[in-house]
Amino acid sequence: MSPEGYRLALLPGDGIGVEVMEQARRVLDSVGDATQVRWTFDEIDCGALYFLEHGRDWAEGSEELCLRADAILLGAIGWPAAQGRGTVLRPDGKMAGWSAIVGNRINLDLYANVRPVKLLPGVRQRISGRLAQVWRPENVDMVFIRENTEGLYSGIGGLLAPGGRGEVATDNRVITRRGSERVIRMAFETARARSGAPGDGQRRVTAVVKDNILHGCRFFVSVLEEIAPEYPDVAYEIVLVDAFSQWLLRNPEHYDVVVATNMFGDIVTEVGAMLQGGLGLAAAANIGDRHGMFEPVHGSAPRHAGQGRANPMAMITATAHALEWLGTRHDDHRLTTASTALRGAVEDVLVEGRVLTYDLVDGRRPAGTTEVTTAVIERLSE
Amino acid sequence: MSPEGYRLALLPGDGIGVEVMEQARRVLDSVGDATQVRWTFDEIDCGALYFLEHGRDWAEGSEELCLRADAILLGAIGWPAAQGRGTVLRPDGKMAGWSAIVGNRINLDLYANVRPVKLLPGVRQRISGRLAQVWRPENVDMVFIRENTEGLYSGIGGLLAPGGRGEVATDNRVITRRGSERVIRMAFETARARSGAPGDGQRRVTAVVKDNILHGCRFFVSVLEEIAPEYPDVAYEIVLVDAFSQWLLRNPEHYDVVVATNMFGDIVTEVGAMLQGGLGLAAAANIGDRHGMFEPVHGSAPRHAGQGRANPMAMITATAHALEWLGTRHDDHRLTTASTALRGAVEDVLVEGRVLTYDLVDGRRPAGTTEVTTAVIERLSE
Ligand SMILES: CC(C)[C@H](C(=O)O)[C@@H](O)C(=O)O
Ligand SMILES: CC(C)[C@H](C(=O)O)[C@@H](O)C(=O)O
Repeated sequence: MSPEGYRLALLPGDGIGVEVMEQARRVLDSVGDATQVRWTFDEIDCGALYFLEHGRDWAEGSEELCLRADAILLGAIGWPAAQGRGTVLRPDGKMAGWSAIVGNRINLDLYANVRPVKLLPGVRQRISGRLAQVWRPENVDMVFIRENTEGLYSGIGGLLAPGGRGEVATDNRVITRRGSERVIRMAFETARARSGAPGDGQRRVTAVVKDNILHGCRFFVSVLEEIAPEYPDVAYEIVLVDAFSQWLLRNPEHYDVVVATNMFGDIVTEVGAMLQGGLGLAAAANIGDRHGMFEPVHGSAPRHAGQGRANPMAMITATAHALEWLGTRHDDHRLTTASTALRGAVEDVLVEGRVLTYDLVDGRRPAGTTEVTTAVIERLSE
Repeated sequence: MSPEGYRLALLPGDGIGVEVMEQARRVLDSVGDATQVRWTFDEIDCGALYFLEHGRDWAEGSEELCLRADAILLGAIGWPAAQGRGTVLRPDGKMAGWSAIVGNRINLDLYANVRPVKLLPGVRQRISGRLAQVWRPENVDMVFIRENTEGLYSGIGGLLAPGGRGEVATDNRVITRRGSERVIRMAFETARARSGAPGDGQRRVTAVVKDNILHGCRFFVSVLEEIAPEYPDVAYEIVLVDAFSQWLLRNPEHYDVVVATNMFGDIVTEVGAMLQGGLGLAAAANIGDRHGMFEPVHGSAPRHAGQGRANPMAMITATAHALEWLGTRHDDHRLTTASTALRGAVEDVLVEGRVLTYDLVDGRRPAGTTEVTTAVIERLSE
């Protein structure tokens, strides 16, 4: 924190990322008014569409703005190259906009991607196009901790293309002791500290691996087994990623804290997001020892972009997570209190059920992005 | 086919694999009686439990028996090392029992893992412990084609452990042109030939990738785009594996043929299995140009093993797939007809709903493994 308050880097990115970031700003302005906390915003143009126009991921100096920010908010990065044809790429083969998302995760050493999956009151899962009417698990409340800097995201690999004709491509999945230890430790610490509890009341860390096939997963398991005895009050279990993808749906009440390597974490947290009512509500925190970047789990959603219909609640929840993290870090109770109030305001709007975007209602006129944010801000100032 | 009929290698493997393989034999005996087809069975002890006893995956000569079989049936391979502690491993670090499953896939060049996902009449998905009462998508009928010999299953990699202390482990994901071309081509051919159709009536190949991160996936997409123009009647789309894991649940009617690399295929087909009512019903065919191995998707299920309660229907459906494949290959109509009848018998038992295992009933006494098979065999001979 600088004397004038907190400096936030805002990375709206692509598509609906821009639209929901506007809502985060409105919410932050409202929190600032209520708490006398002063914000300085560095809004940074970036993303795949920025790349298409400017030939680079963001303007020079953006990396430094992220580095000196007290916290970073991210909208969404990425855009399809054309109808049904994969992702826009940079000349070096990386996704356009890479710097703002994977680049920041690696450069700022944001080693844990923390994704709470909690089914909030009033929310129903949408399955097969319709909102579930009967199925509503009672106690879906878990946290995913995904390793965020290595694994299949190492970038090590490439294409062998003799005569320009692609023949074989490789990607090296790299699992290190340091990378594994810190997320595994965070998983056990989180299980110990958090207030939610799985259905059977037993604190539990579930490690999602494919240790019947992958060297890296066997290593990850061995590191976990070195650490686990330090936490005798927390049970642990090793599950195969394929089986887990089904059990998560069939028995969600069982899970408490789930730890996974980068790519598996990317996939299973998405199934988790479905459990909490879809991507309109799911938020992620990219956390390191010194920096934090907060984002909705949803992407840029090209099909919905520009229509003012995206659900801002995931971005608003990400903002609440940022406030909590900042407040804890700087021992600033104004922020932790504001975070709790903001989460409460989102729950109120969900429970009232009157002002909700298209993803959360069936058969009646949905509210737009701005309206929902307005409803949240109103509850906040009540 | 030899003059005396067909030679089948049976690999029961571990846990409930043994129990359901017995049922496959009963079904095959019944088919043999009805059609005058003669079977020669080579039953091969194998699996992780076999390894624990004998120090090897199977007896010498087993590989040759698989090689000369007209078709192979596989139960399930694999066993947990101990409560919550990962998989039993061989000294070379591979899973115990590897030869019978991954080994056969690679050695016999069974390059495509074909998994039909069809929600049969009478079946409801079990979600969060209860059978879904309201949600029942109308038209879940798709086929997954998973590359089966390369990708993250290459086995290339290992652990760097200076002084015996693990420091870093790597696994090399290898995607080749040949490996990609043949499954992509099979996906388009399957879309063209099959009788099911997605909700909107458009034949479609969906490729599941992470091309915003992985070199191998970008290559896979480029190979697909070379091949796609040969199939102007089949639409195609490239989707990210994380987003797909959610869309598959939210909009299952959309999908027709799904093609994926090995590890991603392993995960998403498991979500697919949930859509068709769980692992009790899901079967997979490992297909090459010369050999075929057929198996239920479920594993050895240590928690259910030895109780006679496992659902034999997945193994029976795998057997039906084997009969169809054998019949087509040898132009033997007795077998294709028997395959259709066997699938019909399974559907009849499902629709009647009286004799079903625990995974398919709520709140009343479930039938056992043997009873369900008997019910299927009775319908078969009606
Ligand atoms: C945009 C993409 C690189 C990213 C990822 O794969 O990590 C996204 O899917 C996420 O989960 O935050
Ligand atoms: C047993 C295991 C090696 C196997 C795999 O990962 O392919 C299984 O999960 C499957 O999908 O057939």
